[in-house]
Amino acid sequence: MDFEKTAQAAQKASQSNLATDLKNKALKKIADALEKRKSEIFEANNLDLENAKSLVENGELSKSAFNRLKLDENKMRDMIQGIKDVAKLPDPINRKLLVRELDEGLTLYKISCPIGVLGIIFEARPDVIAQISALAIKSANAVILKGGKEAINTNKKVLGIITETLDGIDGFPKNFLQQVFTREDAAKMLECDKYINLIIPRGGNKLVKFVKENTKIPVLGHADGICHIFVDESADLDMAIKIVTDAKTQYPSACNSVETLLIHEKFPNIDNLLASLQLSEIRLIDNPESWAFEYGDKILAFKIVKNLDEAIKHINTYGSGHTDGIITSNPENAEIFMNKVDSAGVYFNASTRFADGFRYGFGAEVGISTNKTHARGPVGLDGLTIYKYKLIGNGHIVSDYVQRIKQFHHKDKLNCM
Amino acid sequence: MDFEKTAQAAQKASQSNLATDLKNKALKKIADALEKRKSEIFEANNLDLENAKSLVENGELSKSAFNRLKLDENKMRDMIQGIKDVAKLPDPINRKLLVRELDEGLTLYKISCPIGVLGIIFEARPDVIAQISALAIKSANAVILKGGKEAINTNKKVLGIITETLDGIDGFPKNFLQQVFTREDAAKMLECDKYINLIIPRGGNKLVKFVKENTKIPVLGHADGICHIFVDESADLDMAIKIVTDAKTQYPSACNSVETLLIHEKFPNIDNLLASLQLSEIRLIDNPESWAFEYGDKILAFKIVKNLDEAIKHINTYGSGHTDGIITSNPENAEIFMNKVDSAGVYFNASTRFADGFRYGFGAEVGISTNKTHARGPVGLDGLTIYKYKLIGNGHIVSDYVQRIKQFHHKDKLNCM
Repeated sequence: MDFEKTAQAAQKASQSNLATDLKNKALKKIADALEKRKSEIFEANNLDLENAKSLVENGELSKSAFNRLKLDENKMRDMIQGIKDVAKLPDPINRKLLVRELDEGLTLYKISCPIGVLGIIFEARPDVIAQISALAIKSANAVILKGGKEAINTNKKVLGIITETLDGIDGFPKNFLQQVFTREDAAKMLECDKYINLIIPRGGNKLVKFVKENTKIPVLGHADGICHIFVDESADLDMAIKIVTDAKTQYPSACNSVETLLIHEKFPNIDNLLASLQLSEIRLIDNPESWAFEYGDKILAFKIVKNLDEAIKHINTYGSGHTDGIITSNPENAEIFMNKVDSAGVYFNASTRFADGFRYGFGAEVGISTNKTHARGPVGLDGLTIYKYKLIGNGHIVSDYVQRIKQFHHKDKLNCM
Repeated sequence: MDFEKTAQAAQKASQSNLATDLKNKALKKIADALEKRKSEIFEANNLDLENAKSLVENGELSKSAFNRLKLDENKMRDMIQGIKDVAKLPDPINRKLLVRELDEGLTLYKISCPIGVLGIIFEARPDVIAQISALAIKSANAVILKGGKEAINTNKKVLGIITETLDGIDGFPKNFLQQVFTREDAAKMLECDKYINLIIPRGGNKLVKFVKENTKIPVLGHADGICHIFVDESADLDMAIKIVTDAKTQYPSACNSVETLLIHEKFPNIDNLLASLQLSEIRLIDNPESWAFEYGDKILAFKIVKNLDEAIKHINTYGSGHTDGIITSNPENAEIFMNKVDSAGVYFNASTRFADGFRYGFGAEVGISTNKTHARGPVGLDGLTIYKYKLIGNGHIVSDYVQRIKQFHHKDKLNCM
């Protein structure tokens, strides 16, 4: 099918105004349908796994990608529960952000609304399709999905079940969720700024970088997670050991794991700290090829710095603006660090691993953004919204105000800006 | 000077944490300095005007561009007053948007902060430089300005006075406001996504389109203002005449002026409405070459439509997502119109000319955005901010929560999200 037609259909679907009840009903029906038909999904997934085995043998697919491709009972349960959880979240759409009477009988409303059409490009994780579909429905954004070819059978099956369910719901717009499959379609998606309003890449650093470099459409996400922890002169040794160990070893391949440890040269327990980290099987590197490298493993670059300023400068130079922390007993230094480090998350005496939408209490997570516009850090459903201004008058014209026949009085009835 | 160095210096300047008092003091000193040295500015402006005269004669510069280039006492007074007004606005930075206790002793703060470095490209309006400088200082964003070559002497003088003033203020960072002059530097600015976080083009449709098509950096603005008014079946004739006349004639070259009038075929007073508009010297066109054209003059395309749906479809097809209104006595139709028309402003019985940051009560206006992410519609100072998450603990690690030794309780102390 012609990609432009797919995109046009998505735009049309995005312009229907979905009621909260309809969206939540759709989500519950999808969860039920996936539950009922999970054997079909496992079957499709087995097909993908069979095909992928030879790719792993050839070295074309990594072992960890193979594991992400595999859907088991646990992942299926989490996937279905995730959809039910999204149904329970408050509706992010049609929220009043501002109600301001500009003048007698002339009222301005700032109202949250969907962004429009999302283009999702994801790698071999078929559970993403259910998660993104749920978030898109809840936020009333139409979606075009392009999954990794390794998961094609699973993706087709999961989205097939979802769209069949939606087609059976009275009043739900057609073509709200669509899928494309070829590399050519992915390229067209990145070019299609006429119809697609936001691209969300879900996958590794290479994918995200490729997407960011090849589109003019806003991209929500992060390519790198090069997180730092700075152990200040006055840091508590035990706390430093505990936090750095957690930030490095609790889940080393996560984007919010620490990659570089900076230690104040006057911290009195440098050797003890490093020895303890090595005891936790962390491999320390004091002379890395690059200070801007994401190991994704129990490897930690470290550097002794002269002072807080050098630490901040190092982070702002080599970091990825994701999450960076200071461990200190000096709240003033913590304040300087948190203000001057230009990252989505700036932490004081806490593990960088807390950077996560669920831990922040957002209920659902679109991803983590290192952007400096729109949405930054862990992004919840509100990252999939924008707003419009509704102005309601009864014949009001500007000329009256320019000629000073009337004057604005700007009375706020509600202000959540 | 090497553009990369300019951009690096801007980034460094943007990372200083400017106190509210320091920013407001700087703004007041700038206003005073411009007032004191305005004869120097007029002198520089005269030089530009002299040079521009031959361009106007050659047809290389339009008469209206020449008028925009000219600074007179009124413009100067407005420019200086504008800076003082920005000083009085609340500080958009360091606002707490969310304070959430994730668990005992572990508190998350969502805090507004500057975006970083703004790249401003503007045409022959030297008053823009003072306005943007004021907004940048207040929002603590460093700026690189590239003005039109016609205004080069005025721009150099105005920015010279501003930067000299800032250099004399203790604690104000160097290179916070910088200016570049060549076309090559403008091209480098658009490519410099490493250091520049947001581009704001201020000028005509061609400039904005060029900028949008030639950068991967987010762009805040609008290329077109193709605004519509739909006169519904039940519209009041007098109200329709009054609103459409205001929206077309009060300032025809403004982006929020109406360009296309859609009239319900069952509106009983079509002829009266059109006749009245013609009496106000509006030229009506019922068969335009394109329905997506911004006349910027007292010219109005019009079309008779079958119903509300056709009107909405027309607007979503040919409009620019700027501001579109309905005139009706039927609130249900108004609601459908406002929900389904995908524009920054959707108006019910009010002139499209209200789409403006000052009229909305924002105090200052960065511009009007037709983007679907970050900021939409008239943008105030908050459009120049993003946020960061500060997390403050006392040794908290994620492993305790994964192992269920501890549990999040997510208690909101403040929530302005």
